[in-house]
Amino acid sequence: MLIIAERINATRKRIGQAFAARDAAFIQEEARRQVEAGADYLDLNAALDPKQERDLMAWAVQTVRETTAVPLAVDTASPEAARAGLELLPTGSAFLNSISAERERLQTMLPLAVEFETRLVALAMDDSGLPDSCEARWKALETIFAATDEAGIPRQRIFVDPLVRPVATGPEPAGQCLRMIREIGERGGGAGTIVGLSNVSYGLPQRRHLNRVFLALAAGAGLSAAILDPTEAGMTATILAAACLTGEDAFCMNYITAQREGRL
Amino acid sequence: MLIIAERINATRKRIGQAFAARDAAFIQEEARRQVEAGADYLDLNAALDPKQERDLMAWAVQTVRETTAVPLAVDTASPEAARAGLELLPTGSAFLNSISAERERLQTMLPLAVEFETRLVALAMDDSGLPDSCEARWKALETIFAATDEAGIPRQRIFVDPLVRPVATGPEPAGQCLRMIREIGERGGGAGTIVGLSNVSYGLPQRRHLNRVFLALAAGAGLSAAILDPTEAGMTATILAAACLTGEDAFCMNYITAQREGRL
Repeated sequence: MLIIAERINATRKRIGQAFAARDAAFIQEEARRQVEAGADYLDLNAALDPKQERDLMAWAVQTVRETTAVPLAVDTASPEAARAGLELLPTGSAFLNSISAERERLQTMLPLAVEFETRLVALAMDDSGLPDSCEARWKALETIFAATDEAGIPRQRIFVDPLVRPVATGPEPAGQCLRMIREIGERGGGAGTIVGLSNVSYGLPQRRHLNRVFLALAAGAGLSAAILDPTEAGMTATILAAACLTGEDAFCMNYITAQREGRL
Repeated sequence: MLIIAERINATRKRIGQAFAARDAAFIQEEARRQVEAGADYLDLNAALDPKQERDLMAWAVQTVRETTAVPLAVDTASPEAARAGLELLPTGSAFLNSISAERERLQTMLPLAVEFETRLVALAMDDSGLPDSCEARWKALETIFAATDEAGIPRQRIFVDPLVRPVATGPEPAGQCLRMIREIGERGGGAGTIVGLSNVSYGLPQRRHLNRVFLALAAGAGLSAAILDPTEAGMTATILAAACLTGEDAFCMNYITAQREGRL
């Protein structure tokens, strides 16, 4: 499973302050800690202020690139900010987070994914907002796949986010999301799946337990990638244990190595 | 999910010493801690010495009954020890752990399940030992179901243990067990499922992470009961979080209550 580390997000208070103050050392320390915790990609969200987002994204990309070679996920709804970030990165190295079946988003973001050969997070939603049912999610997804196929983007570069609703809102959301992960594995034509892990626990106390159990459940359903905080207590252990139990880490060699290195 | 707490097992060194010394206070403290941690049943295994097992089982049942009304699981391969324990318990209250398709075990234990109206752990194995494949497990299971049906035991009282092999032995065992849990849910005629949780992590370091993730995966597959140590760090939180995410704890009311009571 690919781990996309979520901490460098300017909509979070302390990170937003660091963006506002152009505090490179603070952002670089966040990058370093997440890489050490096992991040495969570092997500960068610079949405502190729409007027500055393009400049802040460029600044964040440069700042993080000074400290690590781990690839980046350019996380924005703004095509200008996305371009500003992607132009500073090696072609073919980045994640673009995200597209959806919303008409404008698809029209403006898809050309960037083609030009910079990115991997793509595809939100299973359209202009009518967050879908209630799996059927509505599939409908949005079919719109997205039609557009990506036409643009010549291989399914293997697309990671579908089924958009889990908070489990506090009722008994159905988590199971619905897990079913969707399985279905995309079966009939997504090679597309991967991704979740923004912490959405599931929104509004509840002691969220880390729910996040960890949901990650395990999603791994069992075949999840390919997750956006999460790898520095959260127990998260690395959960990821590595899940890899053992889903057969990804055959004979548990990574798990045993992590234990020897004191990372469990 | 029913939690059957496993700590009072005389084959464990410290507990065996307490059995040998008839240290009632020690056993009662183990019972109390497990009940506090959320046990639905307390498993009692008195297999310190075959010659004494019957007497030790009776002693253990009496000792634990003095301190808690939580029902018990009589855990033994000996029909004599099973009878000694069950005779001291209210009819219809206990788990009998366990039967299998092994001819002698089935012939000697099944009448006890009928007489004392127990719930039953049914190991999916026969006289040829631990099966390699799901097919072999189903074959053993069909033998068991034929016998329990004939004895008039409702499927709802039978909890099938698919017998997970340690994940350290290869990439397949955990997935095989999870598939089997799903299949028994679909075509077990109402039978439940149960796992001895810690088997999966045998031989590996930091076993608690593997146990917790496997419990989450098994809950996702529809597991009805688990034999585990509820006092293990994080186990209660995992069980409660899994109940939220599988829809068993609708709107997470138990989870929120547990947090307020400081049990997370």
